[in-house]
Amino acid sequence: MKRKLLAVFTLGFVLVFGSPAIAETIDSLPSWHDGKSKQSIIEFVTKVTEKGAPDFVPPAERIAVFDNDGTLWAEQPMYFQVLFALDRVKVLAPQHPEWKDKEPFASLLKGDVKGVLAGGEHAILEIVMATHAGMTTAEFEQIVKDWIATAKHPTTKRPYTEMVYQPMLELLMYLRANGFKTFIVSGGGIEFMRPWTEEVYGVTPEQVVGSSIKTKFEMQNGKPVLVRLPELNFLDDKDGKPMGINQHIGRRPIAAFGNSDGDLQMLQWTTAGKGSRFALYVHHTDAKREWAYDRKSSIGRLDKGLDEAQAKGWTVVDMKQDWKVIYPHEKR
Amino acid sequence: MKRKLLAVFTLGFVLVFGSPAIAETIDSLPSWHDGKSKQSIIEFVTKVTEKGAPDFVPPAERIAVFDNDGTLWAEQPMYFQVLFALDRVKVLAPQHPEWKDKEPFASLLKGDVKGVLAGGEHAILEIVMATHAGMTTAEFEQIVKDWIATAKHPTTKRPYTEMVYQPMLELLMYLRANGFKTFIVSGGGIEFMRPWTEEVYGVTPEQVVGSSIKTKFEMQNGKPVLVRLPELNFLDDKDGKPMGINQHIGRRPIAAFGNSDGDLQMLQWTTAGKGSRFALYVHHTDAKREWAYDRKSSIGRLDKGLDEAQAKGWTVVDMKQDWKVIYPHEKR
Repeated sequence: MKRKLLAVFTLGFVLVFGSPAIAETIDSLPSWHDGKSKQSIIEFVTKVTEKGAPDFVPPAERIAVFDNDGTLWAEQPMYFQVLFALDRVKVLAPQHPEWKDKEPFASLLKGDVKGVLAGGEHAILEIVMATHAGMTTAEFEQIVKDWIATAKHPTTKRPYTEMVYQPMLELLMYLRANGFKTFIVSGGGIEFMRPWTEEVYGVTPEQVVGSSIKTKFEMQNGKPVLVRLPELNFLDDKDGKPMGINQHIGRRPIAAFGNSDGDLQMLQWTTAGKGSRFALYVHHTDAKREWAYDRKSSIGRLDKGLDEAQAKGWTVVDMKQDWKVIYPHEKR
Repeated sequence: MKRKLLAVFTLGFVLVFGSPAIAETIDSLPSWHDGKSKQSIIEFVTKVTEKGAPDFVPPAERIAVFDNDGTLWAEQPMYFQVLFALDRVKVLAPQHPEWKDKEPFASLLKGDVKGVLAGGEHAILEIVMATHAGMTTAEFEQIVKDWIATAKHPTTKRPYTEMVYQPMLELLMYLRANGFKTFIVSGGGIEFMRPWTEEVYGVTPEQVVGSSIKTKFEMQNGKPVLVRLPELNFLDDKDGKPMGINQHIGRRPIAAFGNSDGDLQMLQWTTAGKGSRFALYVHHTDAKREWAYDRKSSIGRLDKGLDEAQAKGWTVVDMKQDWKVIYPHEKR
């Protein structure tokens, strides 16, 4: 009862007197432990949204960019889009009898994922193109929707959309509640993300930036379609992230969130702007609840970025220490 | 007085009872003559915004796309971005003594624009690259801002930003007031438009889609910059418009507005979606107040598009008949 009374009193106080302290009074980031990371976020948001303050930023310029893999959802044992591609090879195999004798498909169909990965980037690219091109954009959208609704993660056995980070969902909402526009800027495929980001993250299709393959406009039975071609259009990673931001958003973000060296240029680009800027790295330190990896990982390597974050005083989230829960289901 | 009383009564009625008739009661398109064109716009907007109606479209999906040259602002005697490039050649000439003997620059510097145009697309492209590349994106933005603030149209002697179409400004506002997101999808340069579209059209940088050149991320004096390269990245014209829409917006528009054959694929793509769709061509029919041109013009040719618009029942705006004023200054 006492607690309830206090809440009512506090709310009354805020309503009557108004207060920038509202961010502290009502906890918008309940899955974050109190500590330096959480504090740095709240301090930044408070100072850019406080009218009349020297660091005030008008809402139209409150652009926040988020990497996806390893920042908003997990990326182990390998990028989920690669797992999607592997699943698609199995589905498409009956239509491709030649794959039985052709690498990297042959290894994959025998269940030999290590054999596939031995083919390196080239093998992955071949699998991606074979599974991501050759259909219309509308058909691909449906394929992704069907997969994301049914596929399960190999070790947790959970749907991939449940392997998103609860503290980051709260952060996205907290920023939007404070007038920010939240964009995803990911090395992942733009058309692989758009079918589900709105429902899962509240990020609309036009606020998703990602890698893409080329398309071709043509008429099929008198109807215009865009056919996906097996040719890279844009790689939204490393140097590509500032380029993608410039191309799609046309304004420099004031806050950037990533987890790997692939995000470093995005964080550099964001923090090089005038006025108050914010950069945050999610550091995967929790081998028990999630995965622990950084400088030596082939997926989501965080090495140069970690050094630069320490040198420049960027926020580095220690997942183990800073997050009360990792996934939404832990909250229930 | 009677009129005022009626207005108060009508407003009261609307406030108390609510009414879809509000669009007709308060004229959001005052520079449009009453007639088929205006009526078709209002009918479309009413039916997609009326809650519970069979054609209702949720706000997030109310995407409207507008061509720029010839649709939102004038494009004669040639595209304004070409006039910008010609101006830039003159400014840059002292740094390029070799241009005196090199076409197309030599002709241009002698004031022989016909000689420049005789070099065809290749000459124009050379001039565009020489004037649009080689600087950082921030530097180019400033160059465009300075030019647009001072340059004058060769025949009207007005600033280019005053050569926008008043009826289209009203249309943009009317759509946004009805929950639409308004995008520009132009063959013009994306970074040539973004510095001024927000102020002039109310269209934010992230809602501008256009042609682009490649950029390169690099460090200059320890600061990250994007340097503009003399290499085409994307041509947002004809087939490119649906591709650009797919890439940037990731959702099919429900309304599209253009004026030339370069917009045809955009209108086809838009109207091929399910549910209620709207396509409109601005037809340049007013030789006195603006320019009259269509099937045979080298700039803004409207030939196939006009046939298809007639065959499919798209709205074709007759500028002379449908618009009370062309430019904002005529209203004053």
